[in-house]
Amino acid sequence: MLDSLARFFPPLASLQFDLLLVIYLVAITAEAMSGALAAGRRNMDVFGVAVIAFVTALGGGTIRDVVLGNFPIGWTQHPEYVYLVILAGLATTLLARFMHHLKSIFLMLDALGLVAFSLIGCNVALQLDYPPLVVIMAGMLTGICGGILRDVLCNQVPVVFCRELYASVSLCVCALFLVLRQVGIDADLNMAACFAAGFSFRMLALRFSWQLPTFSYQQRWD
Amino acid sequence: MLDSLARFFPPLASLQFDLLLVIYLVAITAEAMSGALAAGRRNMDVFGVAVIAFVTALGGGTIRDVVLGNFPIGWTQHPEYVYLVILAGLATTLLARFMHHLKSIFLMLDALGLVAFSLIGCNVALQLDYPPLVVIMAGMLTGICGGILRDVLCNQVPVVFCRELYASVSLCVCALFLVLRQVGIDADLNMAACFAAGFSFRMLALRFSWQLPTFSYQQRWD
Amino acid sequence: MLDSLARFFPPLASLQFDLLLVIYLVAITAEAMSGALAAGRRNMDVFGVAVIAFVTALGGGTIRDVVLGNFPIGWTQHPEYVYLVILAGLATTLLARFMHHLKSIFLMLDALGLVAFSLIGCNVALQLDYPPLVVIMAGMLTGICGGILRDVLCNQVPVVFCRELYASVSLCVCALFLVLRQVGIDADLNMAACFAAGFSFRMLALRFSWQLPTFSYQQRWD
Repeated sequence: MLDSLARFFPPLASLQFDLLLVIYLVAITAEAMSGALAAGRRNMDVFGVAVIAFVTALGGGTIRDVVLGNFPIGWTQHPEYVYLVILAGLATTLLARFMHHLKSIFLMLDALGLVAFSLIGCNVALQLDYPPLVVIMAGMLTGICGGILRDVLCNQVPVVFCRELYASVSLCVCALFLVLRQVGIDADLNMAACFAAGFSFRMLALRFSWQLPTFSYQQRWD
Repeated sequence: MLDSLARFFPPLASLQFDLLLVIYLVAITAEAMSGALAAGRRNMDVFGVAVIAFVTALGGGTIRDVVLGNFPIGWTQHPEYVYLVILAGLATTLLARFMHHLKSIFLMLDALGLVAFSLIGCNVALQLDYPPLVVIMAGMLTGICGGILRDVLCNQVPVVFCRELYASVSLCVCALFLVLRQVGIDADLNMAACFAAGFSFRMLALRFSWQLPTFSYQQRWD
Repeated sequence: MLDSLARFFPPLASLQFDLLLVIYLVAITAEAMSGALAAGRRNMDVFGVAVIAFVTALGGGTIRDVVLGNFPIGWTQHPEYVYLVILAGLATTLLARFMHHLKSIFLMLDALGLVAFSLIGCNVALQLDYPPLVVIMAGMLTGICGGILRDVLCNQVPVVFCRELYASVSLCVCALFLVLRQVGIDADLNMAACFAAGFSFRMLALRFSWQLPTFSYQQRWD
């Protein structure tokens, strides 16, 4: 099963990142479900739910691939990912009433997904020989743009700009990954370190409500 | 006239889809006018009207081409389309007071356009050898993304996610087109069948107010 | 200094547009600061401030490059631009209380930047052999899309669609540039004329509150 999935994902397979692929699949499922709930808050129909689920789960990778000029875009070569996230979104409409019981599991899957998205984004940019800053930005784009697109389509200010340490976790994971890679750490060990650090950081940030300082400016010039 | 227009549109010309081109031109005109009215609801200036008209009419094809990596993007090779939609948008500011009399004609042109956009999107993706799911998504992107961009730029939740059978019509048209193509139906006949089915479906959906089930979820987790 | 910067910007260097590069760097700094203030009006955290600063300053060029299929996108080859705009955005959070004293300087830098963005956008499209209408649109995309992205991410109707002569200045600059180029004016002289005309036009428009006619349409069809 893993082998057959890895076959569809050569950049990872070549790094023997089978575990990363599993986490990726779990993560896009969780992101799709969070997208579906956001659509439900806007009373969308099931088509809207499917679109928001798709965009939340796969939109980050899409933006990354477009910005890096990395065509064809990932999911166009993996129809199974598209089916997975749309099904997850639609299933959420049936399971919604039970989902608040699963909040803590959700937040954990989301944290794992954030690390997985970040590492995958970095790897894509590295293979295209982009400079380190762009590699880090590619990781962050993959991690946060899905949620930004979800919020824009649901007509609200993206939550990632306003609350919680979320993008910062992605930034630290990407930077750690690049530094460890630079000093020559084994790729599997590097990945394990990134997951340990990123997951712990995100969980601690949630537990202790860590926040970045905010900037408030209400003066009008005109 | 048709020949000279078809000359600018080789993928269609080669399939002898002259009629599709005419419907396409009528459809982008109608979409541009609907975009201009949306801009008017936000009291935009004539520049804003021109942009929203352009984006509503040609934004769907732009998103499709970017997602498929299909460069150069369609309208950049057809300045005449850009002039057409901007003129249509500006003309709408003069004709607006009469336009509610034309509502039913508008809805018919819009339905024809939805089918035309869907078929054109499918054809573009087929020529780039994308898998069937992506071909269907390319058709739908072409049909609905113009309206989504219009609504995002006008700061409202995209109407296509909330009401009426619109995207569903595009989905059915694209699927029908692929199935008939697979079983070897003649291309012209296929197109005719898609228009007949898609147009009827959309008109019936409007007449009887068919809707998809909606999903409402108001629970907050935090 | 200029030489070393121009080295990173071959299309301009080859035209000996050193001055244009300086104005460009000043302009993206000013745009980043305006983006940071917009983020502050939404009480974003410093990550949100950095993103909105980046998007306001470099988003226009990004959209232009994606629409033209001009990969790799400009800033991915110039990490120094990214650092510059993010630092400018973060510095704004410290300097914000003094910034309304600088309003008139800001508007002047913004006007220079609008002309610089427009000319750079035109040059990029010219080098890719796009038709004249697309060249003008590329100039305008570069000039106004950063502000549009800023406003969409801050959940408001883009101000460029509603008020003031801003996009119109970009349109006139791009058209003037193409006409002077067509009649064979020297490139440096052409640029000087565009700056003189565009800057004066924008300043006069601000001074006398010139506006385009607006279009208001409140009728609902349903």
